[in-house]
Amino acid sequence: MSRPQAATERRLIEIIRRAARRAPGVRVGIGDDCAVLEPAAGSLLLATTDLLIEDVHFRRRWATPTDIGWKSLAVNVSDIAAMGGRPRWGLIALACPEAVSLEEAEAFYAGVQALATEHDVAIVGGDTCGSPRGWVINVTLLGEAVRAPILRSTARAGDVIAVTGSLGRSAAGLALLEANPAPAGVAGDARAEVTAAHLRPRPRTREGQWLSEAGGVTAMIDVSDGLATDLGHLCEESRLGARVELARIPVDASVRDVARALGRDTIHWATGGGEDYELLLTCSPEAFDRLASGLARATGARLTSIGEMMPAADGIRYLDACGEAVPVGPGFEHFVTGRARA
Amino acid sequence: MSRPQAATERRLIEIIRRAARRAPGVRVGIGDDCAVLEPAAGSLLLATTDLLIEDVHFRRRWATPTDIGWKSLAVNVSDIAAMGGRPRWGLIALACPEAVSLEEAEAFYAGVQALATEHDVAIVGGDTCGSPRGWVINVTLLGEAVRAPILRSTARAGDVIAVTGSLGRSAAGLALLEANPAPAGVAGDARAEVTAAHLRPRPRTREGQWLSEAGGVTAMIDVSDGLATDLGHLCEESRLGARVELARIPVDASVRDVARALGRDTIHWATGGGEDYELLLTCSPEAFDRLASGLARATGARLTSIGEMMPAADGIRYLDACGEAVPVGPGFEHFVTGRARA
Repeated sequence: MSRPQAATERRLIEIIRRAARRAPGVRVGIGDDCAVLEPAAGSLLLATTDLLIEDVHFRRRWATPTDIGWKSLAVNVSDIAAMGGRPRWGLIALACPEAVSLEEAEAFYAGVQALATEHDVAIVGGDTCGSPRGWVINVTLLGEAVRAPILRSTARAGDVIAVTGSLGRSAAGLALLEANPAPAGVAGDARAEVTAAHLRPRPRTREGQWLSEAGGVTAMIDVSDGLATDLGHLCEESRLGARVELARIPVDASVRDVARALGRDTIHWATGGGEDYELLLTCSPEAFDRLASGLARATGARLTSIGEMMPAADGIRYLDACGEAVPVGPGFEHFVTGRARA
Repeated sequence: MSRPQAATERRLIEIIRRAARRAPGVRVGIGDDCAVLEPAAGSLLLATTDLLIEDVHFRRRWATPTDIGWKSLAVNVSDIAAMGGRPRWGLIALACPEAVSLEEAEAFYAGVQALATEHDVAIVGGDTCGSPRGWVINVTLLGEAVRAPILRSTARAGDVIAVTGSLGRSAAGLALLEANPAPAGVAGDARAEVTAAHLRPRPRTREGQWLSEAGGVTAMIDVSDGLATDLGHLCEESRLGARVELARIPVDASVRDVARALGRDTIHWATGGGEDYELLLTCSPEAFDRLASGLARATGARLTSIGEMMPAADGIRYLDACGEAVPVGPGFEHFVTGRARA
């Protein structure tokens, strides 16, 4: 290990260590063999982990180190949000090539820290090492469930299927970032909105906790791999089918603008594009109005009913405006053939 | 995602899921957004994470997928052992190139599971994805501290420095695995012993828990980066110096045999070589005999006194048989320039 590298390392650890120092529930943060944490008495512990790899999950050409740091933690925060939990403690492992500067590594941790601060997460441990090829990041996030976590496996036939916010923004952002040359005819604010949705997603922590406390949500998952894939997971775990009306899927004007400029299809992005990190949930038809108006009041987020859960024998169907079943593609595809989440 | 890859994925998830199903304290294992865990009432939670990268931490030329799986979890179990804790729940992220077969991926998980079973760890979550270049593994392990965890920062001047087992075996094994051509004159059992020490290390879980319960250990760390580096961490965190007598460092006959055959120095391996995953601890001089004999009775492991903790002003010195200070090199070096642990 060369001197500048060692100095870099020491300074990075100091930066991370300082950030963790006075967080609640942290008896020992960075600087020992393990972090020592004090879970709240009687609470359940939530744990999730995600590996992010350069040229699989992001490209350095359009994602800054700060974007990468932000998103690495955001995808895990979204998993905790999808159970109605409270994110608490993060462990961040980073491997990057020798050519990466101290400034770039600091910018990565600044991105992690910015997202962590917004969601009350303390970074309590990690690992750093050299990488012979490309950036590799792993984030593990621990959280707590105040009441029973909302699972994927507990939806009931007849339940409404609903989604927070809107879908397809992240896929539209990715398409713009990957487009070469950049398309004409996309307004600056539409471009800014969809690329931010892709690079700096905003996990629905407050919404997840509010929905959990409100009662009446029967199952929930975050839309990380795309509606088709994630609704598929929810149906599989609940042993049910589903019927979704494509016309009811909320899609923003910015996404329509980008689709028009690129000659692409918003429905493909809204059903097959991943990484929106919205919450997809089920509830009884009677509970929907109360949840939608309450969520809007409490958090400002829209909740849209897009279909209903069906018996397993009905399968999962996406219907067009005429009520005809339309084939819908798979979810988010990595740049290289990806394996799905375990 | 191609069909065979998807089938592979599904089968892998099923294998992992089955293993986790009936583990204690696991309310929800694999198959939801997060694992849902029930920590024992009143216990402290321990958390540690490690990233392992092909050609940084291991080479496919001499490490089988099962070796890689075993060791990935073992290094984290050792961190929990070093605090006297009980390892409980693991999250395993694996990225490997498309060319990796289902058999190789299964062999990896079999290695993880073999080590997990020995140490009562349940695999409760994970992530898998494609890797454009080489294998990447991240393991996060959660554990519980029955009583106060033993830290690095609480050694006292005058304490004995002691180590379990012996040092240098893993470095000797690595030297043999990397030697080309293989050296003549190493007996088969010596070769088997040191290569197993490198490829399938046996973390000191029982020893760590016994030492924690016995009382009297003032500080503890596992020897992952080499004695020189890890004693350096312990001294830094405790704001103390140390004096180590090289002649007292326990080195096995097998390590001497390999050193002779390769024309290398056992002391360099014992002080600078890493990955022995022995426990390095401090205790009062009065407590040492009780701990050493009790540990041997309870677990069969030897505890050897190798020096004493000194005031910070004395620095960290390694003394030869004549009492002269000898310069001692840094710890474990990765194949590419590595950053140290955060």
